Amino acid sequence: MVKVGVIMGSLSDWETMKPACEMLEEFGIEYEKDIVSAHRTPDDMFNYAETARERGVGVIIAGAGGAAHLPGMVASKTTLPVIGVPVQTKIDGWDSLLSIAQMPGGVPVATVAIGAAGAKNAGILAAEIISVFDTNVAEKLEDYRQGLQQHVQEMRGSLHEQS
Amino acid sequence: MVKVGVIMGSLSDWETMKPACEMLEEFGIEYEKDIVSAHRTPDDMFNYAETARERGVGVIIAGAGGAAHLPGMVASKTTLPVIGVPVQTKIDGWDSLLSIAQMPGGVPVATVAIGAAGAKNAGILAAEIISVFDTNVAEKLEDYRQGLQQHVQEMRGSLHEQS
Amino acid sequence: MVKVGVIMGSLSDWETMKPACEMLEEFGIEYEKDIVSAHRTPDDMFNYAETARERGVGVIIAGAGGAAHLPGMVASKTTLPVIGVPVQTKIDGWDSLLSIAQMPGGVPVATVAIGAAGAKNAGILAAEIISVFDTNVAEKLEDYRQGLQQHVQEMRGSLHEQS
Amino acid sequence: MVKVGVIMGSLSDWETMKPACEMLEEFGIEYEKDIVSAHRTPDDMFNYAETARERGVGVIIAGAGGAAHLPGMVASKTTLPVIGVPVQTKIDGWDSLLSIAQMPGGVPVATVAIGAAGAKNAGILAAEIISVFDTNVAEKLEDYRQGLQQHVQEMRGSLHEQS
Amino acid sequence: MVKVGVIMGSLSDWETMKPACEMLEEFGIEYEKDIVSAHRTPDDMFNYAETARERGVGVIIAGAGGAAHLPGMVASKTTLPVIGVPVQTKIDGWDSLLSIAQMPGGVPVATVAIGAAGAKNAGILAAEIISVFDTNVAEKLEDYRQGLQQHVQEMRGSLHEQS
Amino acid sequence: MVKVGVIMGSLSDWETMKPACEMLEEFGIEYEKDIVSAHRTPDDMFNYAETARERGVGVIIAGAGGAAHLPGMVASKTTLPVIGVPVQTKIDGWDSLLSIAQMPGGVPVATVAIGAAGAKNAGILAAEIISVFDTNVAEKLEDYRQGLQQHVQEMRGSLHEQS
Amino acid sequence: MVKVGVIMGSLSDWETMKPACEMLEEFGIEYEKDIVSAHRTPDDMFNYAETARERGVGVIIAGAGGAAHLPGMVASKTTLPVIGVPVQTKIDGWDSLLSIAQMPGGVPVATVAIGAAGAKNAGILAAEIISVFDTNVAEKLEDYRQGLQQHVQEMRGSLHEQS
Amino acid sequence: MVKVGVIMGSLSDWETMKPACEMLEEFGIEYEKDIVSAHRTPDDMFNYAETARERGVGVIIAGAGGAAHLPGMVASKTTLPVIGVPVQTKIDGWDSLLSIAQMPGGVPVATVAIGAAGAKNAGILAAEIISVFDTNVAEKLEDYRQGLQQHVQEMRGSLHEQS
Repeated sequence: MVKVGVIMGSLSDWETMKPACEMLEEFGIEYEKDIVSAHRTPDDMFNYAETARERGVGVIIAGAGGAAHLPGMVASKTTLPVIGVPVQTKIDGWDSLLSIAQMPGGVPVATVAIGAAGAKNAGILAAEIISVFDTNVAEKLEDYRQGLQQHVQEMRGSLHEQS
Repeated sequence: MVKVGVIMGSLSDWETMKPACEMLEEFGIEYEKDIVSAHRTPDDMFNYAETARERGVGVIIAGAGGAAHLPGMVASKTTLPVIGVPVQTKIDGWDSLLSIAQMPGGVPVATVAIGAAGAKNAGILAAEIISVFDTNVAEKLEDYRQGLQQHVQEMRGSLHEQS
Repeated sequence: MVKVGVIMGSLSDWETMKPACEMLEEFGIEYEKDIVSAHRTPDDMFNYAETARERGVGVIIAGAGGAAHLPGMVASKTTLPVIGVPVQTKIDGWDSLLSIAQMPGGVPVATVAIGAAGAKNAGILAAEIISVFDTNVAEKLEDYRQGLQQHVQEMRGSLHEQS
Repeated sequence: MVKVGVIMGSLSDWETMKPACEMLEEFGIEYEKDIVSAHRTPDDMFNYAETARERGVGVIIAGAGGAAHLPGMVASKTTLPVIGVPVQTKIDGWDSLLSIAQMPGGVPVATVAIGAAGAKNAGILAAEIISVFDTNVAEKLEDYRQGLQQHVQEMRGSLHEQS
Repeated sequence: MVKVGVIMGSLSDWETMKPACEMLEEFGIEYEKDIVSAHRTPDDMFNYAETARERGVGVIIAGAGGAAHLPGMVASKTTLPVIGVPVQTKIDGWDSLLSIAQMPGGVPVATVAIGAAGAKNAGILAAEIISVFDTNVAEKLEDYRQGLQQHVQEMRGSLHEQS
Repeated sequence: MVKVGVIMGSLSDWETMKPACEMLEEFGIEYEKDIVSAHRTPDDMFNYAETARERGVGVIIAGAGGAAHLPGMVASKTTLPVIGVPVQTKIDGWDSLLSIAQMPGGVPVATVAIGAAGAKNAGILAAEIISVFDTNVAEKLEDYRQGLQQHVQEMRGSLHEQS
Repeated sequence: MVKVGVIMGSLSDWETMKPACEMLEEFGIEYEKDIVSAHRTPDDMFNYAETARERGVGVIIAGAGGAAHLPGMVASKTTLPVIGVPVQTKIDGWDSLLSIAQMPGGVPVATVAIGAAGAKNAGILAAEIISVFDTNVAEKLEDYRQGLQQHVQEMRGSLHEQS
Repeated sequence: MVKVGVIMGSLSDWETMKPACEMLEEFGIEYEKDIVSAHRTPDDMFNYAETARERGVGVIIAGAGGAAHLPGMVASKTTLPVIGVPVQTKIDGWDSLLSIAQMPGGVPVATVAIGAAGAKNAGILAAEIISVFDTNVAEKLEDYRQGLQQHVQEMRGSLHEQS
């Protein structure tokens, strides 16, 4: 099975990005996590992206904030699907969101929501991508969806107890 | 090989979404295109999403504008990867972008750029997803990337002729 | 008398949505509150909307945040008036506001202000809708308005004591 | 049957507001249209709002642009439901949208989308409000929804003819 | 000498508006402060505005937040200069700023910055307006400006002590 | 009587600023118009502001776009009231509006709406300021307001002829 | 004397970037212009940046639009000053501006205004940088400034002819 | 060697601007820091800018918030490169960013990111400018870049220890 590469520009992004890894663990998908900085280690970034497919990586999840170039630049050096997670910033992540989503025609990045909810969804999206060819992961995704429904049922109970 | 489902909320979105289909043709990926409106044909939308995987669809590309609910709602009814294309609007697509990208944790949508460039990238992203398990598509993506580089070389020539 | 359906996507929305229920109680309007998640329980949502009118619901108040699809999708499955409350988010509710307000022509949502003040107004708006045909509620609304004026008078006194 | 009051701040808003009236005609709902300017004829505005209910008006639709005070000020002088239509402006209607939607707790305005699509939805929303107590209008709304579905079917045919 | 009317929509705005009054005191300008709510006491608001000039008011300062209609509606009922102070909100005051600044041609509001700094400037602006015909106030404004320069000099000293 | 100084940063702003002058003419107020550029003629700007009061100027209207420093810098060199008109730009005037409105505490600018409607209102606001001490101008402002009402009456007639 | 490198991501950016070159010509500064695409020719971009200083380049001007990574990525591969020009886009250049300006601590980009005015200023800024050590260029910049003043004088004449 | 002038509008900006000075110290570049307020000490500001080059200043770093006129006005009075740092505000610095970045053609400001990260980059950018003609500073910049890479390596170690 392919593995997922989870990268971020700084250790301070880990709190945001952790849910991506937790989701991958939930779906039994192998992953490697690393810090790769577009602006501080550009050569490492290019090397990471260039060798990803041959290293058995199938999907890359890249989180970055501000002028968030990591997802787009990784995408420019690989033809693997790259998922970009816009990290919250002092201007609420508008910079991160636009820097990641507004890629020019030719080099896509799959952008998810700003912050930890987006990171969580990045993990799920990676699983969905793998599920296209992996029935086992597809089933786990179905189970996870059932769990979401179950969770809503539980919350309904709690709400009805509210006065 | 899996096929790609390209859907949009209205015929007026076709001009935006056409590049997604053109890209899929470029990579030799089978696709079906359809109009599925979240707000006008909600049941058809659910049916479309629910049956997609069994119909052999591997990736869904959904374009929508304004309060753009199509990609997210389709994503709520399938565990296939869903790519959302924010269609340009009278407020420049800010509504479309946020309605598609800001999905809550649990149900991801892979958001691309606003407008036709985003649609083009949706087609490429679908190909990248398929390429995870399909060497043939992976090679075609590499060729396409070569073509992008080639195009830049040609533009360099043209620029140098500018005074 | 018709009743009002107050729904929200998550238990965490209750704090925002509670003032809607308080207002309905103030006006003596029957209501039911529930958690219905567009993305986690889409079928329940459709069922909720589809059966609302026959269950004696006259107005639906739906609160949601981020890519807030609940109000618009409920509106797509009923011809009852649907009031959408944009819940505050990490980007201050801009995503919620646009996802709810910018509905395409054909399927309206009555959008109120972001957050708890909006929820309060949703409750009042539901009462105003009922008041069109219910003199009793119309009178209670007039009384409530008198109370608002009275409250301003009291605040004037407090202000004049400020140095 | 109650009638609907459709007002706007200027003759130049008529192009935007016309679809509201067309929808009301579609549903066989009586309406009166008028120009009432919050800033140029404030007393007329107050008089309009104050006497609306007794004149048999059941719902007020008010369109305004920029610092759009008409819907909110009308709402402050009546307990009828007021629907606000944000008219497109040179800053794309952001000013209109916020001036209408962000009403303080106590005095709601039912805000719809920016521009003519919003006006159309204002007409439909007024019909939905009336439908709460008027089975005939409720049925016409169902028919209209059927028509929307039908229109999507026709567009599907046209799309499939596109190459 | 004319006096200044300082009004706000709610007691909670007092914290923001207080600096306006402090500035007026600094310049020896008489003022009256009051709570006048556009949406809760619309008739009082109209009465306030209509009678302002005859009551000896020369300038009105009006603070409001959200769909901030107070300054513009007061301006619609008087030909005195009206200064609008956008109060900070949950969306940082963007709604207040646009609701106050974007007045249509014909009825101006003199808008200042969002929040307490804006309120302070509203007080100064009122003094500047009075200074057009009042040499005494003009001199006090000059003194105040000297004080601002003096304050910068003092801060320079403090900065040079920073390491 | 004091006169009004109307300045702008560039000849290209004249189209926007012309309505300010037209309004002043309507109210019989003397004015001088000039081009004073904050960034290209900073010394002229300072000289203009510094000598304005002694030259008999009572109010300054300054129009500027983009990083619009003219109104605020003029305000820093005079204690006369300065009205700032944000000129429309390629980003719709957001830059102009914020550069003019968000002045720090101590040095106010009376900001009006973006574009020609704002310029018109700047002319009226200048008249309102003069009206505080000039009964003649106050009467002309009342007449102008009557004219606005009259104009609405005329538009009402036109609207009723619309089908 | 050092030369200036003017690069852009696409031939379509040339219309925006041309004024940068015109300014450099005005100041007699040698420059080379080229197309270097961050996403299509990432290796060329790195090579360009890495070798710039040794090739005699002293300042780099990079124009890009959307998720505009060119300036920041070039900056990550050189310690020369890099000037970023945000190219106008379908969302008015907000994406370009934020993608260029919001660089993380450690790797600066000198951002100028959106569009052709920004490109013009990029050329002037490059000259200003060179002027720090080059008296000749410093003098030419002074002359240019004189010309700006002169131009304002000419516009003043034209304005006074306007009625 | 030229020195760098670091100025800010208020002592409260020092916390934001300090990293600029720390960076200059890191690169062994002489600097002077001062408070110069565009609106409170406009003449001092002009004097500062006008005499900067002759006082041996080579680059000016100016931090300001809100209607941030300091960088642009300093730039209007010198042909030295001016770096503008947008200080965080209650609207997250959008006002500061636009007031600094959107300078009209003719008078550039080199804008960096909002807040302390921007100030840090301003210090580095000043060093990069000096490095164009100063090999010693160029080497220190290379060392600093090595340090950034080293720091990423250390963070990688810490990340791998995270579970």
